Amino acid sequence: MAGSTFGNIFKITTWGESHGEAIGVVVDGCPAGLELDESDIQKLLDRRKPGTSQFATQRRESDSVEILSGIFEGRTTGTPIAMLVRNTSQRSADYSEIASYYRPGHADYTFDQKYGFRDYRGGGRSSGRETIGRVAAGAIAEKLLAELGITVTAYTEAIGDISISMKNFDIAEARRNQTGMPDSEANEKAEAYLKACMEKLDSAGGVVSCIVKGLPAGIGEPVFEKLDANLGKAIMSIGAVKAFEIGDGCAASRMNGSENNDAFRMKDNQIVKATNHAGGILGGISDGSDIILRAYFKPTPSIFQQQETVNRAGENITVQIKGRHDPIIVPRAVVVVEAMTAVTVLDLLLQNMTSRMDRIKEFYS
Amino acid sequence: MAGSTFGNIFKITTWGESHGEAIGVVVDGCPAGLELDESDIQKLLDRRKPGTSQFATQRRESDSVEILSGIFEGRTTGTPIAMLVRNTSQRSADYSEIASYYRPGHADYTFDQKYGFRDYRGGGRSSGRETIGRVAAGAIAEKLLAELGITVTAYTEAIGDISISMKNFDIAEARRNQTGMPDSEANEKAEAYLKACMEKLDSAGGVVSCIVKGLPAGIGEPVFEKLDANLGKAIMSIGAVKAFEIGDGCAASRMNGSENNDAFRMKDNQIVKATNHAGGILGGISDGSDIILRAYFKPTPSIFQQQETVNRAGENITVQIKGRHDPIIVPRAVVVVEAMTAVTVLDLLLQNMTSRMDRIKEFYS
Amino acid sequence: MAGSTFGNIFKITTWGESHGEAIGVVVDGCPAGLELDESDIQKLLDRRKPGTSQFATQRRESDSVEILSGIFEGRTTGTPIAMLVRNTSQRSADYSEIASYYRPGHADYTFDQKYGFRDYRGGGRSSGRETIGRVAAGAIAEKLLAELGITVTAYTEAIGDISISMKNFDIAEARRNQTGMPDSEANEKAEAYLKACMEKLDSAGGVVSCIVKGLPAGIGEPVFEKLDANLGKAIMSIGAVKAFEIGDGCAASRMNGSENNDAFRMKDNQIVKATNHAGGILGGISDGSDIILRAYFKPTPSIFQQQETVNRAGENITVQIKGRHDPIIVPRAVVVVEAMTAVTVLDLLLQNMTSRMDRIKEFYS
Amino acid sequence: MAGSTFGNIFKITTWGESHGEAIGVVVDGCPAGLELDESDIQKLLDRRKPGTSQFATQRRESDSVEILSGIFEGRTTGTPIAMLVRNTSQRSADYSEIASYYRPGHADYTFDQKYGFRDYRGGGRSSGRETIGRVAAGAIAEKLLAELGITVTAYTEAIGDISISMKNFDIAEARRNQTGMPDSEANEKAEAYLKACMEKLDSAGGVVSCIVKGLPAGIGEPVFEKLDANLGKAIMSIGAVKAFEIGDGCAASRMNGSENNDAFRMKDNQIVKATNHAGGILGGISDGSDIILRAYFKPTPSIFQQQETVNRAGENITVQIKGRHDPIIVPRAVVVVEAMTAVTVLDLLLQNMTSRMDRIKEFYS
Repeated sequence: MAGSTFGNIFKITTWGESHGEAIGVVVDGCPAGLELDESDIQKLLDRRKPGTSQFATQRRESDSVEILSGIFEGRTTGTPIAMLVRNTSQRSADYSEIASYYRPGHADYTFDQKYGFRDYRGGGRSSGRETIGRVAAGAIAEKLLAELGITVTAYTEAIGDISISMKNFDIAEARRNQTGMPDSEANEKAEAYLKACMEKLDSAGGVVSCIVKGLPAGIGEPVFEKLDANLGKAIMSIGAVKAFEIGDGCAASRMNGSENNDAFRMKDNQIVKATNHAGGILGGISDGSDIILRAYFKPTPSIFQQQETVNRAGENITVQIKGRHDPIIVPRAVVVVEAMTAVTVLDLLLQNMTSRMDRIKEFYS
Repeated sequence: MAGSTFGNIFKITTWGESHGEAIGVVVDGCPAGLELDESDIQKLLDRRKPGTSQFATQRRESDSVEILSGIFEGRTTGTPIAMLVRNTSQRSADYSEIASYYRPGHADYTFDQKYGFRDYRGGGRSSGRETIGRVAAGAIAEKLLAELGITVTAYTEAIGDISISMKNFDIAEARRNQTGMPDSEANEKAEAYLKACMEKLDSAGGVVSCIVKGLPAGIGEPVFEKLDANLGKAIMSIGAVKAFEIGDGCAASRMNGSENNDAFRMKDNQIVKATNHAGGILGGISDGSDIILRAYFKPTPSIFQQQETVNRAGENITVQIKGRHDPIIVPRAVVVVEAMTAVTVLDLLLQNMTSRMDRIKEFYS
Repeated sequence: MAGSTFGNIFKITTWGESHGEAIGVVVDGCPAGLELDESDIQKLLDRRKPGTSQFATQRRESDSVEILSGIFEGRTTGTPIAMLVRNTSQRSADYSEIASYYRPGHADYTFDQKYGFRDYRGGGRSSGRETIGRVAAGAIAEKLLAELGITVTAYTEAIGDISISMKNFDIAEARRNQTGMPDSEANEKAEAYLKACMEKLDSAGGVVSCIVKGLPAGIGEPVFEKLDANLGKAIMSIGAVKAFEIGDGCAASRMNGSENNDAFRMKDNQIVKATNHAGGILGGISDGSDIILRAYFKPTPSIFQQQETVNRAGENITVQIKGRHDPIIVPRAVVVVEAMTAVTVLDLLLQNMTSRMDRIKEFYS
Repeated sequence: MAGSTFGNIFKITTWGESHGEAIGVVVDGCPAGLELDESDIQKLLDRRKPGTSQFATQRRESDSVEILSGIFEGRTTGTPIAMLVRNTSQRSADYSEIASYYRPGHADYTFDQKYGFRDYRGGGRSSGRETIGRVAAGAIAEKLLAELGITVTAYTEAIGDISISMKNFDIAEARRNQTGMPDSEANEKAEAYLKACMEKLDSAGGVVSCIVKGLPAGIGEPVFEKLDANLGKAIMSIGAVKAFEIGDGCAASRMNGSENNDAFRMKDNQIVKATNHAGGILGGISDGSDIILRAYFKPTPSIFQQQETVNRAGENITVQIKGRHDPIIVPRAVVVVEAMTAVTVLDLLLQNMTSRMDRIKEFYS
């Protein structure tokens, strides 16, 4: 697997399995001089931590991050920042049974096909714990972006078919409730829905939205390294994501050009767009308005109902999964979407510095 | 712009502007020994050629490909295959006016912001003509995959809100009609809808589906180089695509785990899935069933209605675009989606050859 | 072969065989706004052109470059610059014989082993003509660097065991004589030596030096992307180069630390080095003094003496190579070394723009 | 610094500073199914460990490796292998003084120029301790190559101007003495020379050779990813290396073609070369004979004599370096050269698996 590195300039490499010693990430290419300490990372990690909600796995992990390199006297040095989180609450025994069969909706079968065998404990590398490295790296990216006046904010937009209403929008609500929805009414309905799912030993999916504010126009490289193409890859690489949208997304395909086109207008001597169907990207390059994206998550495949599957011996069997599983992954995935968005945007922001001869001359004069 | 290269092993680099001398692509990393000549490429290029439908730009280009390297005695040699298509029907005069203002929904403004100025003739590098290089490369990928028993097939699934019905599915129909829909009834309705759009000087969007059959299980690299993540990037990098789905896509987010999970079953001594909500990918790795993806295209931004915008001098103006434009891009984009899917799948298929020690030993014994 | 792309930000992709239609290069990531036309490229190509010296192949090629994209109104647009040179003087018949056997010192055998067969005409992709693309790309890099006050200058330092003397150094001499030596005395001796080699139906090797002046301190990325590591790769990737040195190179290994260390001193309020044994690089990063490197070329393997080898049928045979070959490649390789140095230095110069938080803030303020 | 990753398929990312918490590496892309445990890594690490020789720094570190991921039941799983070594013998106080000035021959000045400040403790990221990650990764590569019958062996060829004689060659000698020379006579002379250097408070340089045996023909990608180009980068990226040679290297530049060409001959029904001036590489691709390379190391810059330099305030000063430093780095660098060679060869060996259509068909049939 040479697939654990993401980014070109701001480059992150994650490693680790659910039930291994630790999970970690190396962030290479972080500019020198950013103030950073473990609390900056921990803050984001705490948002994905298990065991804090009735709708999340009851596995309890402190998920405390250690920074092992790349910081000196409170600032990044420009060298790689290695971070790790020890795994502490593994109960591998829970998984011994699943060594022998393929859980529906999981990567057990595909890992076996690819590698010949697998670390079956807790899903190994395909576990949601893999996202710890992403979130730790994203925390650095978010902090750096914030210094440039750029914010990245994700929240739960829908759970099952319960969606938030923008008129109730309150991001503080999203950060304190258990669904991550910035709308207390929707949150209430979603809680009821999730409890019903859990009673039926079933699971649910949902949608995470993410908005980037303050991004200057000009970010993203035409053709294959478009901002939306890279965001698409970043988000689709998160386990359980099955669809990705920019701006009006799927809905744009049903609109006419006259509705979908965003008019340019002058406002306070600045060029702005009257609407933002495009989600802040034209021709793969940021246009100065908000970047808006959406990630669609499938329901957690680990359900406690009886399911049909096959075992490694090639026999049809019926199984009932045990262990501690999230009935829905969406609330904990919010910060993962935010992290991957931040990492992607930052990488392209850095790449863009080399796009113009006049600015290069200025830089090196 | 260092964004014109895609792929790791099978690596394509496209170049060229709408109104420049030519458009081309270099395909590096194509294995040696594949039989190939220009007709293999031309066949696919003809599927995206303008001027052949009432729903496409009336610009007439033969789009004839020349292969300049990498083939010897009818076979690929393993060295880069350079291909080019001369531009022949440029009417740059049509575009002189747009030099001075920003067309809504186009990349004019973002290119200017990024680079300080732009080749405004026909959209320059952000023109749909850029996809010629992708299709030429895709033709090679499709031919190579076919030799391994893997087929890639794209078609129009929806135009506006008219969708095909799977019970009418006939791929031959898609290849001969003007919408690319594999359903003659839907095609008829879509034609009527498009004519109405054109009468209103408006444009339409739609959905392209693509299916990969015969792909073995095990393709795709965990974490960031997942098969779906790479497909997401490949497809989102096509101009005008605003959303991407794998399998049930957005709909999966509204399902329960018990509905969405695909049971594994034995069939003819093989492991198969009883359903395919997952679209052939689990944990980012192919599972041996069909890969199913969908690309959502926005309506063409070039419409002939009056539109509000700003000019380079920073003044609000009203414009009416002239020239030869597609009222819908979807039918011509079908082969582009197919090409990018083929290139992506092939690249990961080649990467997968190094995943297991036993197979490496066998290879080098 | 996915090995035809070089560079990360300023990224070049070369293609083409000796006896194919054409040879070319795509330069992606060139900043927008650089004044450029074909004469800028042709000037460097003319320095590697065959048929202009008694010590070079008598194959006559005009090697005229065509720019096919990426330039608008005399300036680079930031999009890929595709360039090609048509092959015009192929005499493939000269090569029909070598299809059947392996020339000593050539890549015939290794290409056959790798790919199963080869384009044997003129060495195919392993021909020296492959360097046309490098030189065309290097011409752009050199022009861009010159705008920043950085010059790259290569010359022949030695032929056989005749070396130049720095006290005679005159770069103008190097550009007008047939050896590329910036020393008329050494040139005279080298000419006599080369004539003697040719009379014996033999060939010669030599050394090319390259100096980069005006490069600011700070260029190069620690660990694997060191400036010297990248220069090493760039230079070793040129056919026939068997050794690479930075600064005192091999000789440094026989010195003591007290001799080899360059003292830092203040001069005109600037930090300078009193000596430059290091060749301008410390810890892989430029130190502000001249970058000095050396490339050691083996003698041309195509000699007209009888040689022992084997044929594809696996029989020992004796062969006598025919055709038009350079008795020494060094004089024509000077500009190739210069080009690859320029491309490498520019790429790392661009990468360095993202190294410091304070400069990034300034850039985006 | 986005320069801490090396390789394309077998991809290593190193991190860590001399006086930070730890030093480590992530190895991504290691095929699944290789038997591996910490002792395999420790064996190589012990060969570079300080404190074991009179000619090495007296800093004592156990340099014990921990594997944190990627191994399950004694075998690699195909997922990233994270390894770390804790730093235990830092005496940062030794370095507080050097915060204020630039040591000649070190990267202090260039890091400051690049990043604005530096982690000055023990050289930070530019310390020789950075190579721990390389050696740990190289240990995996060597083990994997050994399973394919490929061995990588490095040794000290020269110290100052004392060279080994091939007629005394004994690799076991190299592994037990303090110079790493496979020749007891040369070792004795080198010891005397080094003692003399130390008495004069001076340091020495030398040459490391490395030989790869058993590598099949066909490895290396033409043009920029040649085997020798990648080896050149790998070796030049090791701190203190100032020159790199393949085969006869520099000497080849003084030879005639008739001497330098290696004749192909049949032997036991195999194609072999009668000589190996080329060092096993033709046209950038392995030819089936031994790969032979040489790395030239400068003398250690940390010497205990008085030296002239400047401080951060821009004043000329005289300094005398303290601390624990290697009077020569060569003996400890032997295993680093071996490791980087192994990593490079393995990466290209894996890349080569995709070069031929017939073999791909066979693989996927």
